[in-house]
Amino acid sequence: MAVNLPPLGELHPVPGVAIGTTFAGIKKTSAAPPPGRQDLVVMLLPEGSVAAGVFTRNAFRAAPVILAEQAIARGGVRALVINSGNANAATAAPGLEDARQVCDAAADAAGVPRGSVLPFSTGVIGVRLPVDRMVEAMPAAVASARADRWADAARAIMTTDTGPKAVSRQVEVGGATVTVTGIAKGAGMIRPDMATMLGFVCTDAKIDGACLAGLVRRAADASFNRITVDGDTSTNDAFVVCATGQAEHPVVSGEQDPGYTALAEALTDVARLLAQAIVRDGEGATRFVTVRVEGAATGAEALDVAYTIAESPLIKTAIFAGDPNWGRFCMAIGRAGVADLDTAGVDLFLDDVCVARGGLMADDYREEDGARVMAQPEFTVRVVLGRGDAAETVWTTDLSYEYVKINAEYRT
Amino acid sequence: MAVNLPPLGELHPVPGVAIGTTFAGIKKTSAAPPPGRQDLVVMLLPEGSVAAGVFTRNAFRAAPVILAEQAIARGGVRALVINSGNANAATAAPGLEDARQVCDAAADAAGVPRGSVLPFSTGVIGVRLPVDRMVEAMPAAVASARADRWADAARAIMTTDTGPKAVSRQVEVGGATVTVTGIAKGAGMIRPDMATMLGFVCTDAKIDGACLAGLVRRAADASFNRITVDGDTSTNDAFVVCATGQAEHPVVSGEQDPGYTALAEALTDVARLLAQAIVRDGEGATRFVTVRVEGAATGAEALDVAYTIAESPLIKTAIFAGDPNWGRFCMAIGRAGVADLDTAGVDLFLDDVCVARGGLMADDYREEDGARVMAQPEFTVRVVLGRGDAAETVWTTDLSYEYVKINAEYRT
Repeated sequence: MAVNLPPLGELHPVPGVAIGTTFAGIKKTSAAPPPGRQDLVVMLLPEGSVAAGVFTRNAFRAAPVILAEQAIARGGVRALVINSGNANAATAAPGLEDARQVCDAAADAAGVPRGSVLPFSTGVIGVRLPVDRMVEAMPAAVASARADRWADAARAIMTTDTGPKAVSRQVEVGGATVTVTGIAKGAGMIRPDMATMLGFVCTDAKIDGACLAGLVRRAADASFNRITVDGDTSTNDAFVVCATGQAEHPVVSGEQDPGYTALAEALTDVARLLAQAIVRDGEGATRFVTVRVEGAATGAEALDVAYTIAESPLIKTAIFAGDPNWGRFCMAIGRAGVADLDTAGVDLFLDDVCVARGGLMADDYREEDGARVMAQPEFTVRVVLGRGDAAETVWTTDLSYEYVKINAEYRT
Repeated sequence: MAVNLPPLGELHPVPGVAIGTTFAGIKKTSAAPPPGRQDLVVMLLPEGSVAAGVFTRNAFRAAPVILAEQAIARGGVRALVINSGNANAATAAPGLEDARQVCDAAADAAGVPRGSVLPFSTGVIGVRLPVDRMVEAMPAAVASARADRWADAARAIMTTDTGPKAVSRQVEVGGATVTVTGIAKGAGMIRPDMATMLGFVCTDAKIDGACLAGLVRRAADASFNRITVDGDTSTNDAFVVCATGQAEHPVVSGEQDPGYTALAEALTDVARLLAQAIVRDGEGATRFVTVRVEGAATGAEALDVAYTIAESPLIKTAIFAGDPNWGRFCMAIGRAGVADLDTAGVDLFLDDVCVARGGLMADDYREEDGARVMAQPEFTVRVVLGRGDAAETVWTTDLSYEYVKINAEYRT
């Protein structure tokens, strides 16, 4: 029941990047896997590539997250190996050793230095990786690598996702056409056993590592760090961007360089569409809602209000019902922890319909207007705090019977 | 579907306190109200009474909350007037004037000074109080006042509650028998239109105002400030304790006085049982769960972990399913924001069953043991962080289909 999850469009290959997938039988099930099901992905990168990423802040971070972050810090990345079906989380030291073995197998199969491979895992928590099966499958995964397999990779990393998520853009940087293509998975960070938000984007832009790290942080803060389904954060969340440097333009190392802004916008655009696709595919989602908070004194307080609205169970159930229950929005704004909030300065809009003005129901507001907005599959909740110029936007879903059903019946 | 909500026991009258109730037709409905339904309560207190309270921190605080807090600060409280059916919230200046008129009517009917009455309201948000009907009903409410009407008051303040909530204790203070009797309402702070957590406790103890204020804060922090159904906070929440001073013991003004500890414990005990009754009656609740976090470096971090567990939709749906999905507990502990948490020091218990030890599944843990604990209507989730000696306890419920149904179908 995804909300307007777009079908895959044209996915431009990224010069220098080759992708292989295979089935390693990572999640043992009594049932045979669906035909064509893949669960192991390798992304091969040329020498000279740089990578940057942002990772979960959950204290129970999974083994692959720890290793991937270390490998990025070392530099010289040549491959990513990604599996679905097992998160390799809450596995302590043995989990680290398992992930290392898988990385070494990928390095050996691809003929790149050990230590140049980043691992990523998503699936069941607390269970050891089936290292033998993964090592055995690695040569086939590498042998299948081609530039045009982004869609296959998007499907192979799915767990509870109802559909693959991939976005591609081309943009001019310093006179050259640069490609930015990425995939993501996740149904809203809402199943630490079987979910996780993963995003992988590659570009052939020529960019130095520090500059890329800044762009990745900026893109994440406008995308993966602005979505919520239920406020829960996986142990494995990661968003990684790799740049092969094969495009023929002068190196981009900062804002002063031609193409910096275009590249930043393309990366942010791809990341935002991928992140929004995760929300659209949120478990049980029947609505895709943009929460926009304006007129805040600081960005932090705008975010506090936006997230309090986006994660309030009362608001999410009202959204499920299409019920413009504006008292619930007041309640959430009021409890968001904004210091000395003058409620007499607060306005509330559902799309263009003004529901409340100055902290009171607007004189010309009619409930049927609010209900009409909330009957749509997508709409915007806009709050104006009247305290300053800061604004923030987050994306969220409703809370439906189906959400409870999926999460209560899972594993039982 | 309340979880072991106890029937009302013996409710000892509090010397000096008289309670009246009546039906004022505060919530106009097309249907006739159920026979015997009351919606207006007055609590009359003798001269020399002192009062203290804690109130919602929601910025959209209701008019009665503002006036009650001011009246307590002025001192000389002689009456409480409480209505269900209308919250008088988001009503701005006219709402304050409405509440003042109701208080004045109560003062006039009871023959006490204007300004000595505390107002409390619970019900629909954003609608003006029917002041005329309330003023008209006030003499009948006051005329019906008797010492033995605590149960009637507990029923009259109900909104979405499935049953009345009242607790009574007697304790020896300085050679005298002192009574502590209280009522509460609320189905978990989860309906800002129709809910609110209200608690009113009276005692005949002789205690000075500053000392009482300290005891009330302490009792609230061990009761109403330790419960959650969904993390949402009403605009009208209030917990007020009134002491008539009619018991024949030396005045209690601090820890050094005989009976201080006994009185503190009785107040806390009454407040805790009232607060737990609200959780037991939480909308859609099928489980009553104690979340205990031990071994924290500070009380604040123990609370952060406890609330993150108690409010996680993933954990609440797993509890609804009776599913000992321990990865979800790890996820919640890990995202609670504890600085530098060493997950290798974390233990997890379901009642006496050790699920995880040192951040890993315990060797001797069997899933059927965890499932057996979670099949009970009441159980304890205990987390040991291994960082220090601080501990905190909160109480919560599960997240069921019924919760979504109640909150989605309300008003629509």
